[in-house]
Amino acid sequence: MPAIHHLGWAVRSIEKARQHFETGLGLEFRGEESHPDVRVAFFGEGQVAVELLEPRGDKTSVGRFIAERGEGIHHLALKVDDVSAALAEASRHGFVAIDSAPHSGSRGTVVGLVDPLRPDGVLIQYVQEP
Amino acid sequence: MPAIHHLGWAVRSIEKARQHFETGLGLEFRGEESHPDVRVAFFGEGQVAVELLEPRGDKTSVGRFIAERGEGIHHLALKVDDVSAALAEASRHGFVAIDSAPHSGSRGTVVGLVDPLRPDGVLIQYVQEP
Repeated sequence: MPAIHHLGWAVRSIEKARQHFETGLGLEFRGEESHPDVRVAFFGEGQVAVELLEPRGDKTSVGRFIAERGEGIHHLALKVDDVSAALAEASRHGFVAIDSAPHSGSRGTVVGLVDPLRPDGVLIQYVQEP
Repeated sequence: MPAIHHLGWAVRSIEKARQHFETGLGLEFRGEESHPDVRVAFFGEGQVAVELLEPRGDKTSVGRFIAERGEGIHHLALKVDDVSAALAEASRHGFVAIDSAPHSGSRGTVVGLVDPLRPDGVLIQYVQEP
């Protein structure tokens, strides 16, 4: 049974959005990381966090998401013991693999992303803790 | 410092969405409630849950949300000790009160809803446990 791990939230600018999440919502800023395609900032205490995703360019995956749907919740992350197994199971449910195999995610995790093809557009990310 | 309590997710039909959340995502079904304006179903274990919201009529608050934005994440719920204080604080951040005062929510909670007027359209609900 997976638990919710975090919410991935696409924003155009972490710098501009940070005040809302940190001061407005009162979620503690936990740090940030820069990856080739995306900058990531973490907020909130405990297991479940909000992860802001700022695209590095319009042609990145998150950049295309914002162009199509605007800023908003990009993925729901579920904590699992085995991302490979979760991707295989997701495929049996008819979810489309965006990541064909697990790869390294933020904060030392292993992740895999799928699209359940729901009208809400929210993707599902499986997360395996290090 | 608030913790994330649950995600309120607007759907046209809980019956149709249930399979996705329960079987597709593997989140345990925890029960449902019917209120005058909305039916609610709970999924997931632990503190953080997904709460599906099915409007009872197009003119309800959730019905209007779906008409305007489609199915998707309606609110992020934050657990607080005092909803009245959280609503007052939210007002100081420029959030618009949808609930002018705390009222009873699902599962015995006390809740208050505000609109932070963000481009993502996600509302914020403050939740006080019984």
